[in-house]
Amino acid sequence: MISHRQQVTDMILSAKVLNNIQWSSVAQEIGLSKEWVTAACLGQMALNKEQAEKIGQIFNLSDEAVAWLQIVPYKGSLPTSVPTDPLIYRWYEVVNVYGSTIKELIHEEFGDGIMSAIDFSMDIQRESHENGDRVNVVLSGKFLPYKSY
Amino acid sequence: MISHRQQVTDMILSAKVLNNIQWSSVAQEIGLSKEWVTAACLGQMALNKEQAEKIGQIFNLSDEAVAWLQIVPYKGSLPTSVPTDPLIYRWYEVVNVYGSTIKELIHEEFGDGIMSAIDFSMDIQRESHENGDRVNVVLSGKFLPYKSY
Amino acid sequence: MISHRQQVTDMILSAKVLNNIQWSSVAQEIGLSKEWVTAACLGQMALNKEQAEKIGQIFNLSDEAVAWLQIVPYKGSLPTSVPTDPLIYRWYEVVNVYGSTIKELIHEEFGDGIMSAIDFSMDIQRESHENGDRVNVVLSGKFLPYKSY
Amino acid sequence: MISHRQQVTDMILSAKVLNNIQWSSVAQEIGLSKEWVTAACLGQMALNKEQAEKIGQIFNLSDEAVAWLQIVPYKGSLPTSVPTDPLIYRWYEVVNVYGSTIKELIHEEFGDGIMSAIDFSMDIQRESHENGDRVNVVLSGKFLPYKSY
Amino acid sequence: MISHRQQVTDMILSAKVLNNIQWSSVAQEIGLSKEWVTAACLGQMALNKEQAEKIGQIFNLSDEAVAWLQIVPYKGSLPTSVPTDPLIYRWYEVVNVYGSTIKELIHEEFGDGIMSAIDFSMDIQRESHENGDRVNVVLSGKFLPYKSY
Amino acid sequence: MISHRQQVTDMILSAKVLNNIQWSSVAQEIGLSKEWVTAACLGQMALNKEQAEKIGQIFNLSDEAVAWLQIVPYKGSLPTSVPTDPLIYRWYEVVNVYGSTIKELIHEEFGDGIMSAIDFSMDIQRESHENGDRVNVVLSGKFLPYKSY
Amino acid sequence: MISHRQQVTDMILSAKVLNNIQWSSVAQEIGLSKEWVTAACLGQMALNKEQAEKIGQIFNLSDEAVAWLQIVPYKGSLPTSVPTDPLIYRWYEVVNVYGSTIKELIHEEFGDGIMSAIDFSMDIQRESHENGDRVNVVLSGKFLPYKSY
Amino acid sequence: MISHRQQVTDMILSAKVLNNIQWSSVAQEIGLSKEWVTAACLGQMALNKEQAEKIGQIFNLSDEAVAWLQIVPYKGSLPTSVPTDPLIYRWYEVVNVYGSTIKELIHEEFGDGIMSAIDFSMDIQRESHENGDRVNVVLSGKFLPYKSY
Amino acid sequence: MISHRQQVTDMILSAKVLNNIQWSSVAQEIGLSKEWVTAACLGQMALNKEQAEKIGQIFNLSDEAVAWLQIVPYKGSLPTSVPTDPLIYRWYEVVNVYGSTIKELIHEEFGDGIMSAIDFSMDIQRESHENGDRVNVVLSGKFLPYKSY
Amino acid sequence: MISHRQQVTDMILSAKVLNNIQWSSVAQEIGLSKEWVTAACLGQMALNKEQAEKIGQIFNLSDEAVAWLQIVPYKGSLPTSVPTDPLIYRWYEVVNVYGSTIKELIHEEFGDGIMSAIDFSMDIQRESHENGDRVNVVLSGKFLPYKSY
Repeated sequence: MISHRQQVTDMILSAKVLNNIQWSSVAQEIGLSKEWVTAACLGQMALNKEQAEKIGQIFNLSDEAVAWLQIVPYKGSLPTSVPTDPLIYRWYEVVNVYGSTIKELIHEEFGDGIMSAIDFSMDIQRESHENGDRVNVVLSGKFLPYKSY
Repeated sequence: MISHRQQVTDMILSAKVLNNIQWSSVAQEIGLSKEWVTAACLGQMALNKEQAEKIGQIFNLSDEAVAWLQIVPYKGSLPTSVPTDPLIYRWYEVVNVYGSTIKELIHEEFGDGIMSAIDFSMDIQRESHENGDRVNVVLSGKFLPYKSY
Repeated sequence: MISHRQQVTDMILSAKVLNNIQWSSVAQEIGLSKEWVTAACLGQMALNKEQAEKIGQIFNLSDEAVAWLQIVPYKGSLPTSVPTDPLIYRWYEVVNVYGSTIKELIHEEFGDGIMSAIDFSMDIQRESHENGDRVNVVLSGKFLPYKSY
Repeated sequence: MISHRQQVTDMILSAKVLNNIQWSSVAQEIGLSKEWVTAACLGQMALNKEQAEKIGQIFNLSDEAVAWLQIVPYKGSLPTSVPTDPLIYRWYEVVNVYGSTIKELIHEEFGDGIMSAIDFSMDIQRESHENGDRVNVVLSGKFLPYKSY
Repeated sequence: MISHRQQVTDMILSAKVLNNIQWSSVAQEIGLSKEWVTAACLGQMALNKEQAEKIGQIFNLSDEAVAWLQIVPYKGSLPTSVPTDPLIYRWYEVVNVYGSTIKELIHEEFGDGIMSAIDFSMDIQRESHENGDRVNVVLSGKFLPYKSY
Repeated sequence: MISHRQQVTDMILSAKVLNNIQWSSVAQEIGLSKEWVTAACLGQMALNKEQAEKIGQIFNLSDEAVAWLQIVPYKGSLPTSVPTDPLIYRWYEVVNVYGSTIKELIHEEFGDGIMSAIDFSMDIQRESHENGDRVNVVLSGKFLPYKSY
Repeated sequence: MISHRQQVTDMILSAKVLNNIQWSSVAQEIGLSKEWVTAACLGQMALNKEQAEKIGQIFNLSDEAVAWLQIVPYKGSLPTSVPTDPLIYRWYEVVNVYGSTIKELIHEEFGDGIMSAIDFSMDIQRESHENGDRVNVVLSGKFLPYKSY
Repeated sequence: MISHRQQVTDMILSAKVLNNIQWSSVAQEIGLSKEWVTAACLGQMALNKEQAEKIGQIFNLSDEAVAWLQIVPYKGSLPTSVPTDPLIYRWYEVVNVYGSTIKELIHEEFGDGIMSAIDFSMDIQRESHENGDRVNVVLSGKFLPYKSY
Repeated sequence: MISHRQQVTDMILSAKVLNNIQWSSVAQEIGLSKEWVTAACLGQMALNKEQAEKIGQIFNLSDEAVAWLQIVPYKGSLPTSVPTDPLIYRWYEVVNVYGSTIKELIHEEFGDGIMSAIDFSMDIQRESHENGDRVNVVLSGKFLPYKSY
Repeated sequence: MISHRQQVTDMILSAKVLNNIQWSSVAQEIGLSKEWVTAACLGQMALNKEQAEKIGQIFNLSDEAVAWLQIVPYKGSLPTSVPTDPLIYRWYEVVNVYGSTIKELIHEEFGDGIMSAIDFSMDIQRESHENGDRVNVVLSGKFLPYKSY
């Protein structure tokens, strides 16, 4: 009996390691970005029927699991509010150290409002660099203004 | 008596509002990016002597305040571990929802290690878009590998 | 020296009590809803120049305070993450008890996405009722869909 | 052995996904609002015998599970005090940003007291809108005055 | 400048100690219970004009302070969510140890609903007892049923 | 293998729902108050041999479970330090809103000390009332004075 | 204006350092144990009139401060729920590591109940020891049994 | 498969209740204090081979479990940082209320340093008393001085 | 089905105790430091294929478990943010007590930046000492400077 | 009036920046390590009379401040339990990632016990390195064994 999406995420992770599947290959088969597809497999996005069935084939999932992939999950992928994993913590640190800066500069350019985390995309790329390669990430979010009413 | 950098940040914020100073103008006068300069003014980076003196002139600060700008501050710009401000929260949400995805994809590309938050830069730009302008942010951090020893 | 918007909110609250000013009257003078105007006076929204000057006259604020009213504030009006005040707690309780219900029903109707808290308005009205008057609140938020990319 | 209502909620969620059941259909069969019926199925309300039996038929539950549906549950549907799911967080954000405003306006209209979360109903509707459909929610709660004694 | 009710509570506490005023005497002058009057003086209830003026005379308060007594305060009188003071902690402990019991017994008697903390009164009395006097407290709250809708 | 009292509480709760047992009937069979007996069944009090055996018969427990009923449990019946269940939260709210009042009035009457939560009893009764029945609760705790030494 | 006992504690601490006063000397003048007297000076116990006046003379306090010493304070002397100071932390650690042991052994000897922290005394002594002197502390608390009712 | 010491503690607790074993008897068989032996059985101390085998016989443990008794456990016996159990909480309260006093008096006698929680012993005894028996506990810890270097 | 690295860590810990394996022997077989190898076995580092297979032989792991050893784990080895285990707490205490000192001295020597926890190694050694042997730990981390941009 | 050591630390920090004083120079004048002296100046260690007077001269402190330097402070130099400053966080991360490793290896070498944080010293040095200089830190703490009793 599956009653939480986490159970399906566990099945995917288990199959991924057993069969040495790459997220980028999965993304290619689905025909979407590796960022969105990985997030979906990790239980952060809902898939449509066709996508879910492909994922089911790739990871050898039951029909019940495939049905769950089409359900909108309870989102949030971190076990604690301040993440302990060093890679993820660095992102938390960027938000903490640069948070007030990001706020000031977006408001200076756009006025009161936010950068959407829904109408949003992310692109992670390796940049070759002689002093050591870099991780370059482009975050793109629609500006949503507060309006008086 | 100044005994915490926050006091200088308060002076800067007060002068900024009174005299309607723009962060982008400050950055231009310093000759560095608006992201780094704003973070420095908000107490997240240390300035060198020349930079501190220019900031002192722009915001009309005392010599004591200028001296404090050259001290490395205790960093972290948020009052709570989960930020309440909607603009900053969206960034926290991105880390929470996409955190496991970012981890998977960087490890798939680079192996075990992190994206540095120190050898790091950020660039925030407006992108015109017919459905509403977007905030585009490029984060660039050196990949730092864990090595066995 | 004003270095935080909270100081201006304190001035407004002090003047409001001293002079027995009603939020609904303030809203009428500004020509906007009582919900938005009150939120703005309480440091949750930024005012434009004209609005800020009117607020300045109503609450007898200094020019510096009026300048601060036009700055986007760090939002979040509650002193603790779980509010202790009984009136506000009831709203937190509604989110806690009905949170999973709201999520299920919006997803059933709209698919994956959220109800915006930015492109959002609120209207609070008294409804006469023979068993005791009721507080009726209409919340209206644009549906923002997650999209695959 | 069932010893917690959560076990029954899990059974309902599992059956719902397997058989692709809609909350609005369940509500129609019960003859009550979709908001109350969904909350009840998710373990936030107690059902009477007749309602529980109907729910038992719809979701194919055991007699023991049907008995548990008639027990008042320990309420609260969120795993953390600040919810991480973006849809539910937006509601938390509304309470945080507008909390002091809601308090001020209800007190201005009604005096000291609260808006009940018990003598309470909620109605969630789609509103068509040319700039994108909206989620409209009406919350109705009896005003309960504090009285001196 | 008074901008928070806590400032008035501080004035009352200061005057109470300086002039050795008893809460029971204050209650007698106001003509209400010592429980409600003390709570009001401690910033947990709003007073009407007449009551506020009497309190103003007793504690020698300014007009501004008297005006604040008529404002509904942000309630909650404890500095931490788990109180450290031994007397108050014992009450928290009662809620913790007997919480599930109270819930079971009220539901067994009344069905689903709550005991109101708004339509509520409290009476604290000394009971003489040969093994040591006892504190007897009567809590009375209206039962508010959840109703399906 | 039983290694925690919670396992026995789960057995009791399961049997109670299956066989529709009332706490007040259990109390009558034990010959003690419904408050103490319920608390004991919910894992907050230790039973003596005779009481445990009667409880074992009523709820059809194994000898091992009956042995565990006689062990002093680790007390505290709430899953979070601030309870989310509305009925229990109202009690937490009473402690929060009236905490400082309770402290002041007990000290005014008795001097420094506490109201015991150990030499303590509780009695919950329905009071008929024309405006809606009330829950009346009498708490009785021995006053324990601090003494200098 | 004194409105919190902490202000008096601050005066005492300031005078103690300026005039190099020893807690043991203060205790001798009051004629009580150093443990109780120190706790009282640090804002954890209420003094009677005579004791307060002596403390007032020793630490050169105003009449207002002396009046406050006779008020029962809000107790709890630690700034965080887990203390950071190494000396105090060791005591917290003892409670954490030995907590379940203490519980088991007191229940084995006395049955269900607690060791009172109110009818309680503490005696701290230096014990000479060839491997380094030891701190010996005797805690004495009345056993208070839970009783069924 | 045993992978955590807690599993062995659970086996010991289960056997203890089933066979009605007393900690003091266990201690006698081991030939050490009841305090240390109980702490060891509860997973807070490591046993040597001989001790572990005796414990294994007393509680009828497997060889694997006996092996685990000789592993140093991850210490800390409380499920929450502020304990909810009334008996253990009283000890937390003593640390909270008397914490600053203990610090002051140990420093006054010994200078800067701590009372060790490692080179430490505890002895819990019943003291007969006409007003009710008392729990007397002697804590003995080596004083460890901070030294400059 | 293995879906989390913790399951493999549990297998390793279980085999280690059953077969009395020493970390230093494991390190010797792998040919790396005991610090890195232990951290890897405890789920804090990713192993390469060869290393994982050797670990698999030593601890008798399945192929699936060996595959998981090569996956980068979610790092962080402590169950609570403030560790309760006395040995680990002492390290937390060093960071708390000496944290500001470490910050000041590294900045004084190197300017703004950090000591890397990624390009990092640790060496733990016993130092014989007549007053009791000492644990000597060398931490070595690359200095990473913040740079303006 | 000085009533907390933090006030003296603030005076020292203010004077340090104004007069551009180096911690290493202060240490040289005191004749002790820079680590201990800095910790003492930052309010984590108590100074003796001679040391305090020298510090008083260096930082131009009042006699009252010099007296406070000789008082044992309430230790702990971090504003939050998980530090936000990147440099200090890296140390917290080391404790988190390597915590279980440190525990395993010290126990493997020494048996049950801890590495003292009191009989402890720290030495921070720059190590030149062609790939970038390193921070080398030697931590030395006496091993303190748990003993059975």
